[in-house]
Amino acid sequence: MQLIDGKTIAAQIKAEIAEEVRQIIAAGGKQPHLAAILVGHDGGSETYVAGKVRDCEECGFKSTLIRFEDDVTEETLLAEVRQLNENPDVDGFIVQLPLPRHINEHRILETIDYRKDVDGFHPVNVGRMLIGLPCFVSATPFGIVELLHRYNIETSGKHCVVLGRSNIVGKPVANLLMQKSQPGDCTVTVCHSRSRDIKKYCLDADIIIAALGVPGFLKGDMVKEGAVVIDVGTTRVPSAETKSGFRLKGDVEFDEVAPKCSYITPVPGGVGPMTRVALMKNTLLAGKKSIYGA
Amino acid sequence: MQLIDGKTIAAQIKAEIAEEVRQIIAAGGKQPHLAAILVGHDGGSETYVAGKVRDCEECGFKSTLIRFEDDVTEETLLAEVRQLNENPDVDGFIVQLPLPRHINEHRILETIDYRKDVDGFHPVNVGRMLIGLPCFVSATPFGIVELLHRYNIETSGKHCVVLGRSNIVGKPVANLLMQKSQPGDCTVTVCHSRSRDIKKYCLDADIIIAALGVPGFLKGDMVKEGAVVIDVGTTRVPSAETKSGFRLKGDVEFDEVAPKCSYITPVPGGVGPMTRVALMKNTLLAGKKSIYGA
Repeated sequence: MQLIDGKTIAAQIKAEIAEEVRQIIAAGGKQPHLAAILVGHDGGSETYVAGKVRDCEECGFKSTLIRFEDDVTEETLLAEVRQLNENPDVDGFIVQLPLPRHINEHRILETIDYRKDVDGFHPVNVGRMLIGLPCFVSATPFGIVELLHRYNIETSGKHCVVLGRSNIVGKPVANLLMQKSQPGDCTVTVCHSRSRDIKKYCLDADIIIAALGVPGFLKGDMVKEGAVVIDVGTTRVPSAETKSGFRLKGDVEFDEVAPKCSYITPVPGGVGPMTRVALMKNTLLAGKKSIYGA
Repeated sequence: MQLIDGKTIAAQIKAEIAEEVRQIIAAGGKQPHLAAILVGHDGGSETYVAGKVRDCEECGFKSTLIRFEDDVTEETLLAEVRQLNENPDVDGFIVQLPLPRHINEHRILETIDYRKDVDGFHPVNVGRMLIGLPCFVSATPFGIVELLHRYNIETSGKHCVVLGRSNIVGKPVANLLMQKSQPGDCTVTVCHSRSRDIKKYCLDADIIIAALGVPGFLKGDMVKEGAVVIDVGTTRVPSAETKSGFRLKGDVEFDEVAPKCSYITPVPGGVGPMTRVALMKNTLLAGKKSIYGA
């Protein structure tokens, strides 16, 4: 069994990005610039955005944080999005989710210029991903595919079972892994809350991507010998062993499953760090105008 | 075994559309208007477009056919697309594919205003379909889902095996059937040219959607008793029994498979007529501004 070390891979990728940014700037190019809109003071969102700002520093990007209070109107937010769309210095930007209830999230996301949509949530990027065209791939699917790539895990012709059909993980990663690409070329099965006999599909799987958000869902008796298991779950569960009183638990019952696997991601330290670096990768692509041109 | 009669269902839908158009016009509303761009004189394309014009007449739509010769430049075609985007009388339009090689098909399709993209090929419509938002669904996936709906075929929790991963059938229909919707809520497996042991997946399937384009691919010994089989294949094969010297053959070895099925579509007369009526349905939705508003 080999542990997939997302933390180390993410650090490597970040170093690669920082090196490329140094070269771009040394050659007189433009420093990539990521902006983030943060609404309100949700603890999780604060932490995520602070992490993104720090990541930008480490990558050599310029970053701008734009804050609004919880009671911001949809119109004000849309106006800010339009301003960022038109600001030539901003290469990419994100609107940190979730947004307050009175704001139509889809409307905000669809107003972002897809050429600056480094979160990859705009329908143009989602659609191009399905079609197989160059696009900004969203963070978690990018992280998963990149881990498979960096560990040289063979995917072609393998049966990949995706547990979960969310818009941010299950559906996009299923679509990526069925593409005529490398990693890709998998036979893909998507299971979800309405699926029957999930165990049967899992037992047949060469690769399992667990993204149900149900801690410890995947047990040892649901996995065949030699499987590759990617755990996307990150549920806070109470813990007596940590200062905070909780710890992150994945969708996989790690102790039971790991001994049977050829490769497995831990939680934390697997997919998580990769999702963070995905935004940096997309910001670099946006800065270089690699996907949609100038 | 019940034969799924796409021809009759398509005629019903067309009659429903025509009735709705009569009511719209009687109430002083605008007659829906579909435009089609046809490049060159490819026999298949000529036939398809002529059929679309005829369907428009039967539905009570206005239709406009715009023709270009094979040597039309991409710029001229893009200019025409932009003109149709801006023409307020045109509710929806299509560019008949395939286009000559010197023209970038994706560029043409992405220039179409997604609010008039009644073929449903624009990334915005593809992306919104994946996300589960209202959109123009492309013809064949629409036709398949509508057949399942009109025959009240239970899909929730069923295992649906999709054979093929094309952008116009396999991938979109897989995404539609895994959605939290009705029809939908299937456990979906997508198999393709790189899949191993397709027979194993098929034998486990409650619903098989065969869209590989390999005539007679699905044999009797690959289907379990009671399965629902949707045959999307339409390959021309030589035939001594027809005047033209050929006939359409599906991806399913019908004589072997049909006796085991609870439902099966014939070729021709199954999915085919439904794909034609899908364009009419989308044109009606475009005329009513049902999806993207005024």
